[in-house]
Amino acid sequence: MVGYIDNKEAILKRLRRAEGQVRGIQRMVEEDTYCIDVLTQVSAATKALETVALALLDDHLGHCVAQAAAEGGVVAEEKVREASEAIARLVRS
Amino acid sequence: MVGYIDNKEAILKRLRRAEGQVRGIQRMVEEDTYCIDVLTQVSAATKALETVALALLDDHLGHCVAQAAAEGGVVAEEKVREASEAIARLVRS
Amino acid sequence: MVGYIDNKEAILKRLRRAEGQVRGIQRMVEEDTYCIDVLTQVSAATKALETVALALLDDHLGHCVAQAAAEGGVVAEEKVREASEAIARLVRS
Amino acid sequence: MVGYIDNKEAILKRLRRAEGQVRGIQRMVEEDTYCIDVLTQVSAATKALETVALALLDDHLGHCVAQAAAEGGVVAEEKVREASEAIARLVRS
Repeated sequence: MVGYIDNKEAILKRLRRAEGQVRGIQRMVEEDTYCIDVLTQVSAATKALETVALALLDDHLGHCVAQAAAEGGVVAEEKVREASEAIARLVRS
Repeated sequence: MVGYIDNKEAILKRLRRAEGQVRGIQRMVEEDTYCIDVLTQVSAATKALETVALALLDDHLGHCVAQAAAEGGVVAEEKVREASEAIARLVRS
Repeated sequence: MVGYIDNKEAILKRLRRAEGQVRGIQRMVEEDTYCIDVLTQVSAATKALETVALALLDDHLGHCVAQAAAEGGVVAEEKVREASEAIARLVRS
Repeated sequence: MVGYIDNKEAILKRLRRAEGQVRGIQRMVEEDTYCIDVLTQVSAATKALETVALALLDDHLGHCVAQAAAEGGVVAEEKVREASEAIARLVRS
């Protein structure tokens, strides 16, 4: 079972919207839209993806990491390390 | 003329790839892929959009802002202010 | 007990270095150092602070959150929510 | 002449405040302050440094880059390239 099982539809909805935003940006570029207006939409799409990432991370901590922590041992440590690395990738992206 | 006129095809190619990445993430979520693997792809898509933004910004500075600066006056100041605001949105997204 | 108890000295050392970097930037500004060179140092200091944040977060997940998760219940949920909010602040800063 | 010459005092004031924040975080760590509260302050200090960077960049575009653009030629191109690289470092930090 994945951590986001209960939020799957909400996450898919957000991702579809982000996909639509990226397609919209392509149309803007094809139509020679002013650079700054294109950039504003790129920032919005980036923010939308970040929101998806934060939702996935919250679910992951609340389910996968929490469950591993309850069981303890090496697996628990491994899950925390893995989550920390994902957070680092997110902060640096 | 927009700043990215000479890089239009390269920018569209990057955007199409980013769209494909976002669609790939949807498939991963539909197939209950492990949270961390989904997150890795979200970080990659975010980074791809950032690269598009930086390319657009570089073109904008090198063409639109540079041209306005060469003409000087209020329009030049306005262009710089506008570019600075776009950079701020990017840094904070 | 705080999560970073075992890494306290390492974290303080990093913070002292970051403080030194910020002081160095002040000196650069006072001496009218070229903008781009000042900016490079500001980016380096920002990155140093982010590294501190990621270390604190890793310790927090591995100790405070893991312990609360092992105990379960409302406190565990609250700890995850709190950690997620801290991660969101970090990603958006 | 550096781009931030007219905002030097404002920038120094912000940097001194950021330095104070970093010193405050050290005190929090020495006193074993709760991880999440330390993290909140690290995010605030990071944001403060970003604000300094955006101010420096705005001044740099409005003065150094604008002036080079008005003169044109290779120097103008070089200034834009240099500014774009500084923006990329900022976005990725």
